[in-house]
Amino acid sequence: MNKPLILISNDDSIFSQGINILVEVAKKFGEVIVVAPDSPQSAKSNALTLEIPLFVREIDIFEDVKAYKCSGTPADCVKIAINQILKRKPDLVLSGINHGSNTSVNILYSGTVAAAMEGCIHEINSIAFSITTYDTNIDFELAKNHCEKIIKYVMENNLENGTCLNVNIPHIKLHDSKGIKVCRQTKGMWAEEFEKRTHPRNNRDYYWITGTFVNLAKDETDNDIWAVKNNYTAVVPIKIDLTNYLEINRIKSVLETEHYL
Amino acid sequence: MNKPLILISNDDSIFSQGINILVEVAKKFGEVIVVAPDSPQSAKSNALTLEIPLFVREIDIFEDVKAYKCSGTPADCVKIAINQILKRKPDLVLSGINHGSNTSVNILYSGTVAAAMEGCIHEINSIAFSITTYDTNIDFELAKNHCEKIIKYVMENNLENGTCLNVNIPHIKLHDSKGIKVCRQTKGMWAEEFEKRTHPRNNRDYYWITGTFVNLAKDETDNDIWAVKNNYTAVVPIKIDLTNYLEINRIKSVLETEHYL
Repeated sequence: MNKPLILISNDDSIFSQGINILVEVAKKFGEVIVVAPDSPQSAKSNALTLEIPLFVREIDIFEDVKAYKCSGTPADCVKIAINQILKRKPDLVLSGINHGSNTSVNILYSGTVAAAMEGCIHEINSIAFSITTYDTNIDFELAKNHCEKIIKYVMENNLENGTCLNVNIPHIKLHDSKGIKVCRQTKGMWAEEFEKRTHPRNNRDYYWITGTFVNLAKDETDNDIWAVKNNYTAVVPIKIDLTNYLEINRIKSVLETEHYL
Repeated sequence: MNKPLILISNDDSIFSQGINILVEVAKKFGEVIVVAPDSPQSAKSNALTLEIPLFVREIDIFEDVKAYKCSGTPADCVKIAINQILKRKPDLVLSGINHGSNTSVNILYSGTVAAAMEGCIHEINSIAFSITTYDTNIDFELAKNHCEKIIKYVMENNLENGTCLNVNIPHIKLHDSKGIKVCRQTKGMWAEEFEKRTHPRNNRDYYWITGTFVNLAKDETDNDIWAVKNNYTAVVPIKIDLTNYLEINRIKSVLETEHYL
């Protein structure tokens, strides 16, 4: 029997420290192949590269692991891995470990999460991992421990078709962790998002995206932001079917009536 | 009292025909302001422009409507409109009319849908419109009629907080339409997604994303692909909270146990 085949991607690029840690953990579970962006692709969401071609090159940077760098987005990487690079469908798609948290609404902008969603679209068990720090000197001990546990859980139990996991690991010491918390995506948004500057030559305005995050669910104790703030690793099961089923009938009862048709 | 303020964006660029049609319809409901990409941004999903600044310029292309072209993605456009350009929070965010369908899983890749999702994140009633054709000679009569009805519905009834609408209008004659159908996102994916070619100079391979769509819910009669194929305009209420609430307890019952902690 074949060993499980594990595809790893990310959005920080194949040269990031986080992907190295994830490769190291994943090797315990099967044959690992990395297909990841050749440059940082943060906040690329599920974007695809349609207007220009994709370039892929094998690269020898991980011990005993085949790896390919790709000129596209995280979603491109997972697609091209499954369709062109891998000889069989992988048993697991892992993304990360992202440098910086992907809690709350950031899940919608994240390229890390998008890579896991792409695996999920292809009906493969998929997990996105992030560590909640941008430090250059990261202690990955807890991350390694919890990545291993969550991968083990998924391989032993499988995820429901159409659902993948979004995992955020706090940057704390292993012994300070309170464990793993399965929870919901926090309601939130970014506010005052731009810094306006003036071009030095033509005096025209330009803008940098910046801003502060607003937590719109501060009283909840069952969401991902609460979990990481309270020293838990937050695991949110997320769906690729965005339908709000509870709203279908309410809208239908008015919008499909004679008045509107 | 102020007239309702309506923000319009899209992903085909401010110069597309579809946005022109949407502006024309929206003017019946209030004061319209357009902030849209200065170049095509298809398949950009919810991507944000973080590494380079955004440039915005007023442009006089719509009758009696202020318009701004922006160098960023659809999500950037909605963010910068709300934060920098508009004097008050809009009452409605409209996106489209996109040239080409955004049914099924394409909702995850679509820049058109992302613009509506961004409005929804800001707690504004938001709707994404697409017409299911890439023809250059489009009959927009049905689209105008149904856009007007759906906008009217949303302004009269409001959407639930955290939910926006994804609308796909078939490219058929007005009198051939069977009406509006509120339905679910079709389960589906893209297969055989790449065309491999060889670089003329260095003999290296490169890839174009292509492929065929696979409908994984062919027997359903309550999804968006079924609706547009059967001459209905498909309206799918979609959520920005991706949490699979039904799975939280099942995963919790195993993953939070001693065995895994």
